[in-house]
Amino acid sequence: MRGGGRPSARLDPVEVPDLPAELVPLAFLLGTWTGTGRGAYPTVDDFTYDEELTFAWPGKPVLRYAQRTHVPPGGAPSHAEVGYLRPTPGGAELVVAHPSGVAEVSDGPVTAGRVELASRTVVTTPTAKAVSEVRRVYERRGDRLWYRVDMAAVGQPLGFHLEAELRPA
Amino acid sequence: MRGGGRPSARLDPVEVPDLPAELVPLAFLLGTWTGTGRGAYPTVDDFTYDEELTFAWPGKPVLRYAQRTHVPPGGAPSHAEVGYLRPTPGGAELVVAHPSGVAEVSDGPVTAGRVELASRTVVTTPTAKAVSEVRRVYERRGDRLWYRVDMAAVGQPLGFHLEAELRPA
Repeated sequence: MRGGGRPSARLDPVEVPDLPAELVPLAFLLGTWTGTGRGAYPTVDDFTYDEELTFAWPGKPVLRYAQRTHVPPGGAPSHAEVGYLRPTPGGAELVVAHPSGVAEVSDGPVTAGRVELASRTVVTTPTAKAVSEVRRVYERRGDRLWYRVDMAAVGQPLGFHLEAELRPA
Repeated sequence: MRGGGRPSARLDPVEVPDLPAELVPLAFLLGTWTGTGRGAYPTVDDFTYDEELTFAWPGKPVLRYAQRTHVPPGGAPSHAEVGYLRPTPGGAELVVAHPSGVAEVSDGPVTAGRVELASRTVVTTPTAKAVSEVRRVYERRGDRLWYRVDMAAVGQPLGFHLEAELRPA
């Protein structure tokens, strides 16, 4: 039902009967997810972060993606990302913007409850730190949403950056 | 006050005393704006659209940008965009993601109540329509926010695409 149906901010997929057929393989992502993640990178100290992450159906055959982190506990805003996840036959494409001045275009395969996304292009504004590659995996584990992000940035090779297992908000 | 203060979703700038100094030249954008716009492009019929557009301060020294349009009157979701506007000395940088699979990195000068943004890079997912250049102007006109978007896409040269004058929501 392309463009029709009732847009949903945070309904469980089973409550979205009008979800376009092409979004069904991505329905495991739908909802708002919260929890604590851990981060590391060769250029910074290891860190943890509180996160709220949402995949929502805006009424078109895409998912809207938004993520915000805070320095725990209950601290200042830290990172954020916004963008869209687009279904393709057997896979998905992600376009995402970061407040750090980074835009990422990625794609990859979708299997049951799992999507893998590798950047095709990462572009940055003139004042942004250099990011050259991003890889993401999102996986549904029971009622939790797990993800891992690997990154090549500021002259470092591709390596682990972020991981979290989030619960429904 | 980098990273501090009270994040604001839609306050008038005069109500945001903790706004970081580098965001003050962009404060004229802050708020949620609504109205009807007109669109044209050589490859489509002229059209109008209902729009809600927000520039918000998320608590970091950037503005969060989000835009949604509907087919008037009160119709189906049409276009959308999400991203961030970053202040630079004398100007601003924009990173924005479109559900159509387009990511845009732009920059340009900020003068009193006006920002001009020209794309440095436009990247698209494998299944997206080709967009090669985007130019945007946002201008405060009294209590209204006017903007114009020019675009080069699907083989067409850079030309007028969208214009609207929006009122505070």
